[in-house]
Amino acid sequence: MEERGYVQVYTGNGKGKTTASFGLALRAAGAGKRVFIGQFVKGMHYSELDIVPKLETIEIRQYGRDCFIKKEPSESDIRCAKEGLAEMAEILKSGKYDVVIMDEANIALFYKLFSFEELKQAVCNRAEGVEVIVTGRYAPQELIDMADLVTEMREIKHYYTKGVEARVGIEK
Amino acid sequence: MEERGYVQVYTGNGKGKTTASFGLALRAAGAGKRVFIGQFVKGMHYSELDIVPKLETIEIRQYGRDCFIKKEPSESDIRCAKEGLAEMAEILKSGKYDVVIMDEANIALFYKLFSFEELKQAVCNRAEGVEVIVTGRYAPQELIDMADLVTEMREIKHYYTKGVEARVGIEK
Repeated sequence: MEERGYVQVYTGNGKGKTTASFGLALRAAGAGKRVFIGQFVKGMHYSELDIVPKLETIEIRQYGRDCFIKKEPSESDIRCAKEGLAEMAEILKSGKYDVVIMDEANIALFYKLFSFEELKQAVCNRAEGVEVIVTGRYAPQELIDMADLVTEMREIKHYYTKGVEARVGIEK
Repeated sequence: MEERGYVQVYTGNGKGKTTASFGLALRAAGAGKRVFIGQFVKGMHYSELDIVPKLETIEIRQYGRDCFIKKEPSESDIRCAKEGLAEMAEILKSGKYDVVIMDEANIALFYKLFSFEELKQAVCNRAEGVEVIVTGRYAPQELIDMADLVTEMREIKHYYTKGVEARVGIEK
């Protein structure tokens, strides 16, 4: 990869942040790019986990527990996230992947599972040409300042207000 | 499919609308759902076209020409879109697909390639349980009113202002 890699951030309270990053992973894989997806906070089963292994150039790993953080993160939440970030820092530096997705890293920052400085260091030390995608609500201003592209997914309307629960294959 | 299908709309001027729908397609396929993606206005090559055929439960078709509409849509633009909508109406009604994505249908509406009433009829006549995803800038208010979920992708920052052109595997 000769071209520069950029930092893209997908944040906001609307549906579509993680799916946008997976769609990008699919497009990148279609162009023969190698993609790594690291999912912070998440440890539960999502349908995408069943299909990504069919796409040889996409690798996916989860750095969370099998439930969301309730009020306060546990020591185990913090340990999972810190280990995940350390692993992703190596992956970013290795140059083995053209596109690296840090799914829900903003949530990890929000819960202070690791600091913005730690994330920044991992991103800034990446190999040349690596494109980085960071998703999750509550992107901190420092990350927005650092990013090259930021989209805010704004919820205009959501069917959970009608009592629709997360559905397999649509939300999970 | 026993459950109700909803109408989701991804609109706004930010990056992430089409990719969000493709990520959703991937998730749905991971859950064994059958997905149809119809792309209006687009007829040019995108990297996702090279990888989707590897995913057996996703089908994709383009209903546009090999260039974007410049100022005024040509007769050929209109014909492609109208034929596409007619085909998608059949697909929506057939019940052969669990998730149907009408990519850039909002752009087709914006350019009056077909009317909102025509789109509405196709969507409302769909088989039970079919989830519909409509993407593209400029979603008309009538569609927002009709939808169950709407996310606006707002551009906070974009690297094209730095002169970055569309890259293979990232934008196309």
